[in-house]
Amino acid sequence: MIPTPYLLFLGDAPDQLAAKVAIGIKDWRPENAVGQLRLPGCKADLGLSDMTLEEARTAGAQTLVIGVANRGGVISETWKKVLIEALDMGFDIASGLHNLLRDDPELVAAAGRAGQELHDVRVPSVSYPIATGEKRTGKRCLAVGTDCSVGKMYTGLAMDAEMRKRGLKSSFRATGQTGILITGRGVPLDAVVADFMAGSVEYLTPDNDADHWDHIEGQGSLFHVSYSGVTMALIHGGQPDALILAHEPTRKHMRGLPGYALPSLEQLRDTALPLAQVANPACTVAGISVNTAAMSEQEALDYLAEVEDRMGLPAADPFRQGAGRLVDALQDL
Amino acid sequence: MIPTPYLLFLGDAPDQLAAKVAIGIKDWRPENAVGQLRLPGCKADLGLSDMTLEEARTAGAQTLVIGVANRGGVISETWKKVLIEALDMGFDIASGLHNLLRDDPELVAAAGRAGQELHDVRVPSVSYPIATGEKRTGKRCLAVGTDCSVGKMYTGLAMDAEMRKRGLKSSFRATGQTGILITGRGVPLDAVVADFMAGSVEYLTPDNDADHWDHIEGQGSLFHVSYSGVTMALIHGGQPDALILAHEPTRKHMRGLPGYALPSLEQLRDTALPLAQVANPACTVAGISVNTAAMSEQEALDYLAEVEDRMGLPAADPFRQGAGRLVDALQDL
Repeated sequence: MIPTPYLLFLGDAPDQLAAKVAIGIKDWRPENAVGQLRLPGCKADLGLSDMTLEEARTAGAQTLVIGVANRGGVISETWKKVLIEALDMGFDIASGLHNLLRDDPELVAAAGRAGQELHDVRVPSVSYPIATGEKRTGKRCLAVGTDCSVGKMYTGLAMDAEMRKRGLKSSFRATGQTGILITGRGVPLDAVVADFMAGSVEYLTPDNDADHWDHIEGQGSLFHVSYSGVTMALIHGGQPDALILAHEPTRKHMRGLPGYALPSLEQLRDTALPLAQVANPACTVAGISVNTAAMSEQEALDYLAEVEDRMGLPAADPFRQGAGRLVDALQDL
Repeated sequence: MIPTPYLLFLGDAPDQLAAKVAIGIKDWRPENAVGQLRLPGCKADLGLSDMTLEEARTAGAQTLVIGVANRGGVISETWKKVLIEALDMGFDIASGLHNLLRDDPELVAAAGRAGQELHDVRVPSVSYPIATGEKRTGKRCLAVGTDCSVGKMYTGLAMDAEMRKRGLKSSFRATGQTGILITGRGVPLDAVVADFMAGSVEYLTPDNDADHWDHIEGQGSLFHVSYSGVTMALIHGGQPDALILAHEPTRKHMRGLPGYALPSLEQLRDTALPLAQVANPACTVAGISVNTAAMSEQEALDYLAEVEDRMGLPAADPFRQGAGRLVDALQDL
């Protein structure tokens, strides 16, 4: 668990897109962000108060979160100077960068001196158990995609936000680094050792109130040959009560796999549901989340109407339309 | 790769069963075993020549393989004395024990001094790539089970042996520690990090002659919620041309999962085949391997006849009957 609230470090981000992680935190957990710290030359701006380390500490910030991708895979000397100063002032540091904080001797020394923690969210910090398959209390929803990167994380975050807005009991359960930094906790599933994948998902989504929903962040796709094993572990470890089918209709082939066509939504349903029912016989497909970013408003509406009619399930783009109808579908279960 | 041939270390095995790994080597790669080394009190006997370290070196042995499970998870002082002596005499040491050779400072020092290698086959020694899904030349066969521990490794080893007996091009591709020690190479799939599982299987089964068959060692089951992700990665990383359905008909519930019923062979076929066809549209189910160890001869024959009739596929117990009919089925493809 990463102590909140955060000061968001944008560094010398070359553009707004490089600050994707910080944007996610600001969009989904604004209460976790007291301000932003930008270095000279920074081209990203979240519209938060620009703060010095000292101002942020005074405002209560506990952790400096690296909310920006670094260039060339190295932590520059400019960055490191700020990070060491932050540790000395009592910040923890959290990072999803490929090059780990813990592999930098100067940062390790500074953290030790200050008694602060370095949180590398890309690597597991827990020895996860082997999955037991025992039925857990509470409800769980998992988005499964026709492909990778079709909006599964966004769908889960939007459904969680909508449920909490309605006063319902709900948690987003992160399984990737961005989600972990947004919510301050989670399992970096792609870095978990094979035998413990499903167990780590059980660990992430423990017993809960009967009317509480976990929105488990999906990963990969059953139809993506590089990552399907990770998806399978989510389906069995998560023992979902509800699946949301996630799709991006303009994708020409599976991400990174030229020559591999996307499955249809029907194929996805007919593959994922029986597998989910192994772990939870009561599981159903509750709705369809479509990423229509590449379509015009009218194209998107036409497509969603066609899918809804064809599949007999509510179909929505949670980014364009909100997650209300998908949450309605969970409440109707 | 572990240098062959081996001297098989049986230590002070309390019974024959404890020497399972050594028995596997002797059964499947007798040419790899020059002899056995037994300590006082050893209750296992492979019927190989008892040899001192020196005799085995003279006979050409390159590696001392720990072919026995240890008690209490520790490498005893008695064992360690022999292992250090072996290193000093020019043996590598190979082990599938939970407690790693490389974690013992005395063994590490002795290996360094002697210039020999410690092979801990439980942990990956390679940085595997992410799977690309690119079509590879050569043929591949994978056994998929209704459950874990239903005879998938045995099936692959028996089919490989039968093919080589017929003068066909064939390799057994190990994905677990016993298989790796038997064949001297492989991928310890259950210890590979999630993102690289399918890539490690691609690495294990590279391009080959058009008429060469890889028999990929199966793991877990699509229906076993603890390990299904590993099975999924084998199906997509292995891009099999042929699946063998593996089953143990007297099993009451999924191994280690009371309350989880086994799927039918039809369910296994209808789940595994479409998933395999994502990576290889030409994949077919070639036959059924049944572990009938818990049945009488007549029960077994009746059951096999019934399954064969019902499924329209050759059904055999490779332990009782040999793998001939399963290999016939591959040759008929």
